[in-house]
Amino acid sequence: MSETERGSFTLPGESGYEELTLELAKRWGADMIRDSDGTVLSDELINAGYGIYSTICLIRDHNQWANAHPEQLQQTFLITEPRSATGETLEISLLKDFYKEQFRINESPESIKYWQVYDRTSNMELNRDSWSYDPLTQSVTIRDIVPFHQYTVNFMAYRIWEEISMYNHVTNHWEKEHLMPLDPRHVETRSYLYNWLKTWCEEHPATTVVRFTSLFYNFVWMWGSSERKRNLFSDWGSYDFTVSPAALREFEEEYGYGLVSEDFINQGKFHVTHMPPGRRQLDYMEFINRFVVDYGKQLVELVHSYGKQACVFYDDSWIGLEPYHSRFKEFGFDGLIKCVFSGYEARLCAGVPVKTHELRLHPYLFPVGLNGTPTFAPGGDPTKDALEYWNRVRRALLRQKIDRIGLGGYLHLTADFPDFCSCIEKIADEFRTFKGLHEAGEVYTLPIKIAVVHAWGKLRSWTLSGHFHETYMHDLIHINEALSGLPLQVEFISFEDIKNGALNNVDVLINAGAYGTAWSGGDAWKEDEIVDETARFVHNGGIFLGVNEPSAADGYQTFFRMSQVLGIDQDTGARVCHGRMEYKIETIPGLIPEGARINGKKGLYLTDQETSVLAEENNVPSITYHPFGTGAGIYLSSFSFNNINTRMLLNLILYSRNRNLDQNYLTDNPETECAWYPDCRTLVIVNNSEVPQTASVKTEYSVVKTVLAPYETIIKVM
Amino acid sequence: MSETERGSFTLPGESGYEELTLELAKRWGADMIRDSDGTVLSDELINAGYGIYSTICLIRDHNQWANAHPEQLQQTFLITEPRSATGETLEISLLKDFYKEQFRINESPESIKYWQVYDRTSNMELNRDSWSYDPLTQSVTIRDIVPFHQYTVNFMAYRIWEEISMYNHVTNHWEKEHLMPLDPRHVETRSYLYNWLKTWCEEHPATTVVRFTSLFYNFVWMWGSSERKRNLFSDWGSYDFTVSPAALREFEEEYGYGLVSEDFINQGKFHVTHMPPGRRQLDYMEFINRFVVDYGKQLVELVHSYGKQACVFYDDSWIGLEPYHSRFKEFGFDGLIKCVFSGYEARLCAGVPVKTHELRLHPYLFPVGLNGTPTFAPGGDPTKDALEYWNRVRRALLRQKIDRIGLGGYLHLTADFPDFCSCIEKIADEFRTFKGLHEAGEVYTLPIKIAVVHAWGKLRSWTLSGHFHETYMHDLIHINEALSGLPLQVEFISFEDIKNGALNNVDVLINAGAYGTAWSGGDAWKEDEIVDETARFVHNGGIFLGVNEPSAADGYQTFFRMSQVLGIDQDTGARVCHGRMEYKIETIPGLIPEGARINGKKGLYLTDQETSVLAEENNVPSITYHPFGTGAGIYLSSFSFNNINTRMLLNLILYSRNRNLDQNYLTDNPETECAWYPDCRTLVIVNNSEVPQTASVKTEYSVVKTVLAPYETIIKVM
Repeated sequence: MSETERGSFTLPGESGYEELTLELAKRWGADMIRDSDGTVLSDELINAGYGIYSTICLIRDHNQWANAHPEQLQQTFLITEPRSATGETLEISLLKDFYKEQFRINESPESIKYWQVYDRTSNMELNRDSWSYDPLTQSVTIRDIVPFHQYTVNFMAYRIWEEISMYNHVTNHWEKEHLMPLDPRHVETRSYLYNWLKTWCEEHPATTVVRFTSLFYNFVWMWGSSERKRNLFSDWGSYDFTVSPAALREFEEEYGYGLVSEDFINQGKFHVTHMPPGRRQLDYMEFINRFVVDYGKQLVELVHSYGKQACVFYDDSWIGLEPYHSRFKEFGFDGLIKCVFSGYEARLCAGVPVKTHELRLHPYLFPVGLNGTPTFAPGGDPTKDALEYWNRVRRALLRQKIDRIGLGGYLHLTADFPDFCSCIEKIADEFRTFKGLHEAGEVYTLPIKIAVVHAWGKLRSWTLSGHFHETYMHDLIHINEALSGLPLQVEFISFEDIKNGALNNVDVLINAGAYGTAWSGGDAWKEDEIVDETARFVHNGGIFLGVNEPSAADGYQTFFRMSQVLGIDQDTGARVCHGRMEYKIETIPGLIPEGARINGKKGLYLTDQETSVLAEENNVPSITYHPFGTGAGIYLSSFSFNNINTRMLLNLILYSRNRNLDQNYLTDNPETECAWYPDCRTLVIVNNSEVPQTASVKTEYSVVKTVLAPYETIIKVM
Repeated sequence: MSETERGSFTLPGESGYEELTLELAKRWGADMIRDSDGTVLSDELINAGYGIYSTICLIRDHNQWANAHPEQLQQTFLITEPRSATGETLEISLLKDFYKEQFRINESPESIKYWQVYDRTSNMELNRDSWSYDPLTQSVTIRDIVPFHQYTVNFMAYRIWEEISMYNHVTNHWEKEHLMPLDPRHVETRSYLYNWLKTWCEEHPATTVVRFTSLFYNFVWMWGSSERKRNLFSDWGSYDFTVSPAALREFEEEYGYGLVSEDFINQGKFHVTHMPPGRRQLDYMEFINRFVVDYGKQLVELVHSYGKQACVFYDDSWIGLEPYHSRFKEFGFDGLIKCVFSGYEARLCAGVPVKTHELRLHPYLFPVGLNGTPTFAPGGDPTKDALEYWNRVRRALLRQKIDRIGLGGYLHLTADFPDFCSCIEKIADEFRTFKGLHEAGEVYTLPIKIAVVHAWGKLRSWTLSGHFHETYMHDLIHINEALSGLPLQVEFISFEDIKNGALNNVDVLINAGAYGTAWSGGDAWKEDEIVDETARFVHNGGIFLGVNEPSAADGYQTFFRMSQVLGIDQDTGARVCHGRMEYKIETIPGLIPEGARINGKKGLYLTDQETSVLAEENNVPSITYHPFGTGAGIYLSSFSFNNINTRMLLNLILYSRNRNLDQNYLTDNPETECAWYPDCRTLVIVNNSEVPQTASVKTEYSVVKTVLAPYETIIKVM
C-alpha cells in the first residue's frame, strides 16, 4: 500500500511504551498521536513527526479556583422523593435521597427563591408560608399538611463532583481528588477558563489539534444515596445541568418571563428527550445554546490564533453544542469526533458541517468494557469485539464519507493481543479504501428520499438520546440503525417542518414510536394541519411508514390519526366490544424475507377492507399495506434492528415505490449488503453476519456472485 | 334418596318424546317441565303432574302488529364508517356498512332532527346547512368539505329483525319469518302487549311459572354488511337499543336537557360497559330503567293475578332490569334464571333479591355449542362438557345457596348419550345436597370482607358485561371468578360508595383493570377524596389489592394514584431515563403456590425500598407487597383465573391479614377446595381438576385426608 493511502488514523500514544507506540503507528498507518484520560505523551512521541492531538476537558480540573469560588460551580434542580404525610407536620431532609458526594444544597436566598414545595396528591404548589428550611438539619418542614397526601421539595444544589470523573472513580475505583465542574455562566470563571486555555496553548506548542472533550455542560446524570438505586436519572439530551440563579435571571431578562423549578422538575419526571418538548423548555434550550455557541466560539478562535485546529468530542459535556443545530457552524470547529458502537452514530458524525469527521472505534483500550465485562484482560476477546463493532459501523461508512478513525485508552494493553493489532491494521486499511472510494465520486443511492419525522426534527438527527444500548426500547433507534447502511437518502424533520412544506421533496415519511413520545410526536398530531399535510402527501403519491403507535393522539375517533392512510388503528379500550375485520395473510414473493420478525401488539384492528395484512402475531396484524390515493400507508407493529429485518424494511420501501425487489446493486441475501461506486466502477460487498454467506449482485455489467467469510468485505472493480 | 330430596330441577320437555321426558324427569328429580325456543309441550306432558314453566319473549313474535305500526319498532343510532374526502362534496350511503336485514333508516323529520354529521378529523360537527339527505339514494351529501378529512353521519334506524332471533336464523340456518322487536315506549304497543299477555295467561291455565325471556330491550348487537366484519358492536350492558324520538323527547321533558345522537355514538366508539360512564349516560340509563321497572311491574302483577309465578331470564332483552339495581325488587319477580358457564354467574344469580334463584346449566341440549363445536352430535362429548361446566360452577354453589337448576333445548338429543343422562342425575343429586347444607345453616366463611371497587359498583356485581369468554381480556373477570368460590365475604362498590364511607366495613379493597377502564376506574382516581379515603383505609389497617393498572390516572407524579400504598408505579414513557430500584425476590414459604403464574408488564418500577418483590417476569416485578401504616398494598401485574392462581390470591389475602396459610377448613392442595357447614358438621371437598388429587384439611375435630377422582366431590360428616 502506497504512502498516500496511509494516514487518517489517530493513535493513542503512551509514555514508557515509545517503541510500541511507534511500531503500531506505522502498522496502523497513523498520522496523529493523541493522549487519553490518564495517559501523557513523552517528548520522544511528541517529536516523532506525527501530528499531536491533545484532549482537554475545560470545566473540570480547576479545583483551586472552584474552592475559591464555590458559588460558581455548576448546579441543578433536584426533587426529593415523595413523602407521605400522616401527622400534622412533615419534615423532609433534602439530601436524604441523593449521593452526597455529588450534590451540595445551594442555601443562598437567590437559590431558595426558586424552591417549591408541592402537594403531589392534589398537584398543588404550597404557599411559601407553609414551609421553612432549616440549614442546620438541611431539611424543609411543612405545616398545614393534608393527611395521606404526598409532598416533595424542589430545591437547587451545586454539583460538587463532575459526573464523568465521578463515574470513572466509582466504577474503576480511582482514588483521586474529586474534580468539580465550573460554570462559565459566571463572568469571572469565564474569564479564568479563557486565560487558562490561552496559557495552555502557549505551553503546548507541539499540539496540532486541541480536542475539546465536549464543552461546558454535561448531559444529566443524577445519583442517589441508595445502592439499590444509584442512578436516579440520566439523559444525554437534557439541559438540567445548566441551571443556576444567574442563568435563570438572565433568561427572564431576555425572554420576559421567568422559569420556576417545576419547569425543570416536571413532577419529578424531568424532561426526558424521549418526550416532546414544551415551549418553555425549547426557549430555555435556545437560551443555553446561544450561550454555549457564543463562548465556545471564543475558545475556538483562541485555539485557532495559536495555529492549532480545534475539534470537539461529541460526548460527555456536550449540551448546547448539538451538531445538527443551525448555529453549530458558528463555533468554527475543524472537526467532530464521535465514539461509535453503531452505524447510526457514524452517519450522525458524517453529516455534521465540519471539515474533519472522525470516529473513535470500540473497543477502547481499557481492561474492562462499558458493560463491565473484560476487554483487554483475561477472559476478554478484543479482536472479536473489534470485528463486531466494525461490522455494525462499516455499512454506514459505505454510505457516507468519514475522514478519520482512531482509538482511545492505554496502548500498552494491546501488547498481549497480537491478533487485535492485526485486526486493527486490516480495519484501518479497509477504512481508508472506503474513504478513497467516496473521494473518487458519490456512492450509488436509490432515488428514494426518506424523511423521519419526530418532535425534535433535524436537531436530533440519527440519535435519540445516547447510544443504542441506552435507547433500544424505542423502535426509532432500530429504524435509524437500519437506515444508516441502506442505499437511501435520509433526513430528519420536525412537525413544524411538515407545516412548512418539508414533504414536498420526500418519497417516504417514517413515524416510529410509542404514543406520547417525541418519536411518535405526541400532541403534534392534534394539529389538523399536520394531519392534513401528511394525508395530502400520501394521497399524491407519498408513502407513510408508521411503526408501533404512529400519529397517535387521544380524543379522536381513531387513535392513529393516520388510520385513513394506514388502514389500521389501535383500540385503547373503548373498542373492546367492537367487531374486528377478518383477514387473510397476503404473501408477496420475496417481500418479507425468511426470518424477518416483527413483535406483535394488542388491540390493532383493520379500518378498511383494502388493507393488506402481510404478517400477523397472535392473530393480530403486525405488517400491513394500504393504498391511499396514489400513495400508500405501511404499518409495522414494531421494528427491531437485525440484518433480515433491515432488508425487509428496504423491501417494503421498494415495493411501495413500485420498484423490483431484485434490482441492480442489491445483494440477494439479507445477511449481506453492497455499495456501488460508479465513478471508480467499484462494487463493495460485505457480509454482515458472523457466518459464511453467499451473495449475488446484479450490476449493469454482469451478475457478481461471491462467497464471503464471516464479516468479510469484498471489493471488486468492474 | 328420599322423595323430599328430589325436586328443584327444571326439565325441558319435548312433544313426541313423552316417554323419554317422563323417564328423565324421574331420574333427574325434576319437579318442573319447561318448553324451550323451538319446542312445545304436549297435553300428556302438561298433565303429568309437574309444574309447567312457559317461556315468553314479549317484544317479538307480533309481526302483524309490527307491520301495522312500523313506527313503533325498536330503534337505534348508527354511525357510518368514516369516509375520506378528496373532492369538494362527499356522498355517504347510510346503510352501506350495515346488515340490511337488521336496519331500516327512520327517515321521519323527528328522526332526522337527531342526525349529526361530523368532521372526525377536526372533531367538529358540521352545520346542518352543510349536508342534506336524499331518501331516493338513502345517502347524505356533504358540501364545503375539507380535503382529506374524514366524515361520518350519525342517523337513526329501526331494527327490523330482533337480534337473538336473527342470530339463531343466521347461525343455525333457520328459515322463518323475521321477527321484529316492538318498542313498548309507545302507548299503543304497550297496551297491545299488555292485552296480549293477558290473553296468553287466560289461554295457558296449566302454566305455573311464566318465564320472561328478559323484558323489552336487547343488549346491543349491531351487524355489518361485510362478511369479514359481521359483528360491528356488541355489549351486554349498553342501552343503545332503547332509543327513539319518543324516548328522547320524554327524557328531555324529565331531565330538562336534551340528548343528541353523539351522546350515544361517542365518536363511533359507543358506550362500552368496560369504560366508565358519563353523567348523561347515567341519566339516560336511569330514565330507561324507570320505564322498564314501571311497565315490567305491571306485567308481573298481571301474571300474578292469574295465580302464576313470574320469573325472568337474565339474558337477551334484559336492559333496564339489572338485578343489582336498587329498584329491581319493585318488579316483584318470583325468581331469576341465569344460564351459567362460570362460578361468578352462579354468585350473581344467588345474590339477587328474589325467592327463587335458578341456574340453567350448560351444555344446552343443542347439536352445536355456542363456539360452533359439536355437543350432541358426532364428535361431541356432552358428558365431558357437563362435568367441566359443573366443575366451574360447583365451587360457587358451595359458597351460596342456589334454589334450582335445569337444562334447556331438545331433550330427544340426550337419547344417544346415556352417559350424559347419568352425569346429570349425579349433578342434580349433588346440587340438592349442597342446597340442603345451605338450608341447614350458614357455610363457614373467613371473617375477611372483600370489596371490589369499580365505576359501576353494585350495579355490575360479579359480571362485567356478559360471559367469561366475552370478557376474558379483563383482569377483573378472572378475579371475580376466583372469588366466586373462595371462603370470603365479597361485595362490589363504586367510587361514590367510597366517598360515602363504604370502606368502614371492608378488610380488603380490590381494584383490578387497565388504565381508563370502568374496572380500574378512570377519572374517578382524579378525585382527591377517593385517593385520600383509600390511603386512610390502608393506613388504618386495610389492604389495597391492585391488579394491572389499579388507581391509574394521568397528569400526576405517579401513574398509580395508590403508589404510596402499593410501593410500585408504572412508567408511561416519561420515566424511561429514570433509574430503577434494584431488588431481590423474597420467598415466603407457601405463599406463592408452585405453578402460580402472573403475566408480566412493562414499565413497572418500585417507589419504595420497603416494597417486597414476591415474583417477577422479564426482570420486572409482577407480585409485590408493601406495608403502609398498619395495612398494606398488594400488587399483581395481571391475574388469570385457574386453580393455582386462585389459591395464590387467597394466600395473599390471608398473609396480608396476618393469618396462617394452613388454617382450618382449607385444603393443602390448590387443585382442591373445601367448604365447611358447621351446623351439620359436614365437610365438602372438591377436586377442581381433571386428574386425581389428594387433599388434607385441618378441622377442629381432626385432619381429614382424602384422595379424589377427577372432578370428584367428597362429602364427609364429622
